[in-house]
Amino acid sequence: MIFLAERRPFDILNQSLNNPVLIRLKGNVEVRGTLASFDVHMNLVLENADELVDGQIKRKIGTVLLRGDTVVYVSPA
Amino acid sequence: MIFLAERRPFDILNQSLNNPVLIRLKGNVEVRGTLASFDVHMNLVLENADELVDGQIKRKIGTVLLRGDTVVYVSPA
Amino acid sequence: MIFLAERRPFDILNQSLNNPVLIRLKGNVEVRGTLASFDVHMNLVLENADELVDGQIKRKIGTVLLRGDTVVYVSPA
Amino acid sequence: MIFLAERRPFDILNQSLNNPVLIRLKGNVEVRGTLASFDVHMNLVLENADELVDGQIKRKIGTVLLRGDTVVYVSPA
Amino acid sequence: MIFLAERRPFDILNQSLNNPVLIRLKGNVEVRGTLASFDVHMNLVLENADELVDGQIKRKIGTVLLRGDTVVYVSPA
Amino acid sequence: MIFLAERRPFDILNQSLNNPVLIRLKGNVEVRGTLASFDVHMNLVLENADELVDGQIKRKIGTVLLRGDTVVYVSPA
Amino acid sequence: MIFLAERRPFDILNQSLNNPVLIRLKGNVEVRGTLASFDVHMNLVLENADELVDGQIKRKIGTVLLRGDTVVYVSPA
Repeated sequence: MIFLAERRPFDILNQSLNNPVLIRLKGNVEVRGTLASFDVHMNLVLENADELVDGQIKRKIGTVLLRGDTVVYVSPA
Repeated sequence: MIFLAERRPFDILNQSLNNPVLIRLKGNVEVRGTLASFDVHMNLVLENADELVDGQIKRKIGTVLLRGDTVVYVSPA
Repeated sequence: MIFLAERRPFDILNQSLNNPVLIRLKGNVEVRGTLASFDVHMNLVLENADELVDGQIKRKIGTVLLRGDTVVYVSPA
Repeated sequence: MIFLAERRPFDILNQSLNNPVLIRLKGNVEVRGTLASFDVHMNLVLENADELVDGQIKRKIGTVLLRGDTVVYVSPA
Repeated sequence: MIFLAERRPFDILNQSLNNPVLIRLKGNVEVRGTLASFDVHMNLVLENADELVDGQIKRKIGTVLLRGDTVVYVSPA
Repeated sequence: MIFLAERRPFDILNQSLNNPVLIRLKGNVEVRGTLASFDVHMNLVLENADELVDGQIKRKIGTVLLRGDTVVYVSPA
Repeated sequence: MIFLAERRPFDILNQSLNNPVLIRLKGNVEVRGTLASFDVHMNLVLENADELVDGQIKRKIGTVLLRGDTVVYVSPA
């Protein structure tokens, strides 16, 4: 597939392993934590995670498995 | 697939079997209980489960099968 | 797939055949009745079913086929 | 698949052919009519169908093809 | 598949070719026009089509390709 | 598949290449422009495109790739 | 497939690599940045990205992986 860039979107996930990321989910939920693992469905596990509302910590959720189809974006934090 | 982490997101489910978990579902529903089983679709069975609203128990639902595509996140509690 | 539990989520449906179940559907609808059949898509047939709003019977619907992709959870009642 | 019941959910559709059914669709629409045909996607054709709001006839729609993925439930009426 | 009716839901589309149909789409949009073509995804082309709101013509849209997954129902008009 | 019409819905897209089209997207967004390309997923590229609200130009967006699963309808303008 | 245009929608993504793009996501979110990579699911990575509300920068998010199924449109900026 010659129209694909040599860099791939999932490279960002690989580079972010063990580093802090900010995840935006559908329904206006945000979670920030350390990326521990991911798979091809974009299922993600964060550790030491906090749930955020308007950028403020709403609650600490520790380790969390986020289902890939609820993800809007992932940003290295 | 060399870009995948050695740890996988579903490891968290395996490690959580017979332990308490907090499940957030789409539509602002939360369920807390003991994880009894799961499958590749993220269908989950909890035992001794409570449905929560704003962190308070809304009702006891005992054993419950949660459909995977309604899951937002799963957190060991 | 060694990470899967020996128990499977659909066991709950099998054990609930001919027994009362409470079904929560997307869009805040609940249906209670006797589980008569199910399939791999989580399509369910209930008999002697009632539709509930806030835990109160809204109407009797008798036999009903519920489409699997509208299911949020199934709980033995 | 030994965990499946011998009865199947679609049996209800087969038994309801040429008989009256009540269909609830996503988005709070209900349609009542005589089931003329169906397929594996739960696409349904009703004849002499009425669209209902709050149990009252909103309009007569005669013959209608309902797309399966909009179905919430089907009940023999 | 012995449980399927001999008539099939898509027969209605075939019989409606070159005839007027009323289409209800998700999000409370209705379109009325002459069915010119369809495919297995329920993608539909109407000619001389009008968009309706509350049964009144909102605007004339002439020829239009409707994407199948937005269809709620199709009714010969 | 003998029940399919000889004309196909995507013929409209082919005939509209290099011609003006009006696209309605889910979420009440409309885009008008010249159809430059499309694929089997109904992904579309428009050139000289304008985003419309209530039929008025909200902003000029020039060249734009519209994701197919957000399309409600496509109409030659 | 003779009905496909010779130009393809994803050509726009290829041509936009290393150039600024405006992305509209479902749920009224917009992100502007430099396109660094994409894949066949329309997953996109932007660098030096800003999240916009009503055309104003809401916050700087730097590098970000946008999940393809949340994309409404992509426009070279």
